[in-house]
Amino acid sequence: MSWTFSERARKLTSSAIREILKVTERPEVISFAGGLPSPATFPVDRIRKACEDILTTAPSPALQYGPTEGYLPLREWVAERYSKDGVKIGVNQVLITTGSQQGLDLLGKVLIDVGSRVLVETPTYLGALQAFSLSEPTFVSVPSDDSGPIPSALTRDLTDGARFMYCLPNFQNPTGRRLPTDRRQQLTKIAGEAGLLLLEDDPYGALSYKGEQLPTLLSMNPQGVVHMGSFSKVFAPGFRVGYLIAPEKLHGKLVQAKQAADLHTPSFTQRVVHEAIKTGFLDDHIPKIRELYASQCRVMLEAMKHHFPASVQWNEPEGGMFIWVKLPKGVDSMKLLDKAIAQNVAFVPGAPFFANEPQSNTLRLSFVTVPQAKIEEGIAKLGALLKSEIGG
Amino acid sequence: MSWTFSERARKLTSSAIREILKVTERPEVISFAGGLPSPATFPVDRIRKACEDILTTAPSPALQYGPTEGYLPLREWVAERYSKDGVKIGVNQVLITTGSQQGLDLLGKVLIDVGSRVLVETPTYLGALQAFSLSEPTFVSVPSDDSGPIPSALTRDLTDGARFMYCLPNFQNPTGRRLPTDRRQQLTKIAGEAGLLLLEDDPYGALSYKGEQLPTLLSMNPQGVVHMGSFSKVFAPGFRVGYLIAPEKLHGKLVQAKQAADLHTPSFTQRVVHEAIKTGFLDDHIPKIRELYASQCRVMLEAMKHHFPASVQWNEPEGGMFIWVKLPKGVDSMKLLDKAIAQNVAFVPGAPFFANEPQSNTLRLSFVTVPQAKIEEGIAKLGALLKSEIGG
Repeated sequence: MSWTFSERARKLTSSAIREILKVTERPEVISFAGGLPSPATFPVDRIRKACEDILTTAPSPALQYGPTEGYLPLREWVAERYSKDGVKIGVNQVLITTGSQQGLDLLGKVLIDVGSRVLVETPTYLGALQAFSLSEPTFVSVPSDDSGPIPSALTRDLTDGARFMYCLPNFQNPTGRRLPTDRRQQLTKIAGEAGLLLLEDDPYGALSYKGEQLPTLLSMNPQGVVHMGSFSKVFAPGFRVGYLIAPEKLHGKLVQAKQAADLHTPSFTQRVVHEAIKTGFLDDHIPKIRELYASQCRVMLEAMKHHFPASVQWNEPEGGMFIWVKLPKGVDSMKLLDKAIAQNVAFVPGAPFFANEPQSNTLRLSFVTVPQAKIEEGIAKLGALLKSEIGG
Repeated sequence: MSWTFSERARKLTSSAIREILKVTERPEVISFAGGLPSPATFPVDRIRKACEDILTTAPSPALQYGPTEGYLPLREWVAERYSKDGVKIGVNQVLITTGSQQGLDLLGKVLIDVGSRVLVETPTYLGALQAFSLSEPTFVSVPSDDSGPIPSALTRDLTDGARFMYCLPNFQNPTGRRLPTDRRQQLTKIAGEAGLLLLEDDPYGALSYKGEQLPTLLSMNPQGVVHMGSFSKVFAPGFRVGYLIAPEKLHGKLVQAKQAADLHTPSFTQRVVHEAIKTGFLDDHIPKIRELYASQCRVMLEAMKHHFPASVQWNEPEGGMFIWVKLPKGVDSMKLLDKAIAQNVAFVPGAPFFANEPQSNTLRLSFVTVPQAKIEEGIAKLGALLKSEIGG
């Protein structure tokens, strides 16, 4: 028996990161590769109580099919959370998704035709490239620097006819960078004038180490922005509960696409999340995650200063889960990875995060999964390897 | 702000059933429209215990990201369950999906190009038509009768170049019909010779009222069949845990498509399902569901005999959740529905289940959600309406 794959399936390749993560599952490997939240932050007792409460007070609806849009009280919670500073988000704009990855899949389906131009940051989140790729767009990398995409680079050549620009303003995966407020303003202004829809993917926004949050793109132009959020980084990723906020006309199409994709996000997980957070739990919980990650980030940055050669550069993130490292030009981080894994330390090469020309001298380090004692040890190993490879 | 929808999005229309279900949510409506499993069958205590056990013994992995393929012990459970009668299913063929609806979405993505021919039963499951439609195939309705698709109708004209045939051999949604064993053999033989991949969607197979199960298409040609199963009808739909079994080469592509779609099915729900069923729970539980549904089915059939006009025909299902009703030619069940709802009783018109020419004189009744006392009352109302509309 042989069968014919679709064009899009023939172009599918397995995620480089995925393959790397498999190798790094060996317990002896100190892995800075994964973007897995620290299990120390999972609110197990709160979840246990929420499960009990739901199975006592509302077992039937929690175990039954539910509406495609999501559990209404959770949608209301999201709408309320984003209605502030004069912006009003209606519950009819909120769609609960099976992780915010599903939001990317649905948006790709509803907005991309074969060959449609899609603007992305340089570099950008690999999972978005994978999701959009199934609709076979032409990716255009928007010139970006250490602060994110450069608004003035959004000329009409780039924006005209583009279906949307995909943005990660807060502590971007992979670079950890945050887009400054003035750039957010310029970006939404230029995009609004050009009729360019902005997708704002914001899984890390709450994880600002100092707690201050910059205004969302959504708040600057609610009718021109689709905002995606997630409970994966502030509650627990194993529930796969995310959400998106979209203008109503777009929301309607996304609901139809979601119905065909999985009918609805599990009723049970939606209700557990809502039960756990409905009375302000996250306001107490998120600061603890911030503190832990800030502390782990400091440990990694200190170790890098101590162990990395002078020719290596990196940023100092103000939040989130990642540090972005630039090796001297000509050094290929993919080749370096093999040697690192041989020494039981791992990272993610930067190249797969570029939609067009890869900067193969880059790599991503995550400091959230590995305990602090191991961070120092792993960075020391990596530093020694770097020194032996590139000198310094 | 205006944006451009993709071609596929412009063709999306909301499910007729979905809109109907909204109307029938009013408590005074006796709805035979929904295909919702009876909440009386949800194993609440077993689920409560499974949640407790998991949050005690393995909270971190249950709340963390997990592998795209699914939770390994659950995949092993599935592989074992289907390895019998000389057929060996490998764990590498099993993919856990976010409900079996997601299996349809992934298969559409991986196997359908715009205009690809896809064979379906007449009528067929509406949710599959919706999922496949996003890849814009050309549907070909295979001639079918009260026992299901007619194998001899699968001439080379139909099979040549078709990407697959989508089959529901057991208690099909919407007709409740079951494909006899000899047709299963003929179908897999003809498809195998023609190189036609068969998708076997089997959410209802375990719900045979007498308990006897016919051999799956998978068992007849494991390399030529993708089998989809679900825990929604035998455990709880609110978990959205389904699975598919595919030849390994196809499985690999489906995993890649799934990674882009939602990374993985929630770790927590997968583990709850596995914890609850791993020691044979379903073997005790499923017979109770069968008995309840068989009894509700009998009540509905009895009431139909008593109240429906002689010119109306229907089948007597041997399992599952649905009865298929044929009104006299020329009677449009969609128009009838408005009048039925005005009298607080609802069903699903048959037309949306046809990929090509709809038989608009058909309708679907479900007997699983409504309590027995209400079944008699609802059918009496519907019978009176039918008599006033078509006489007899």
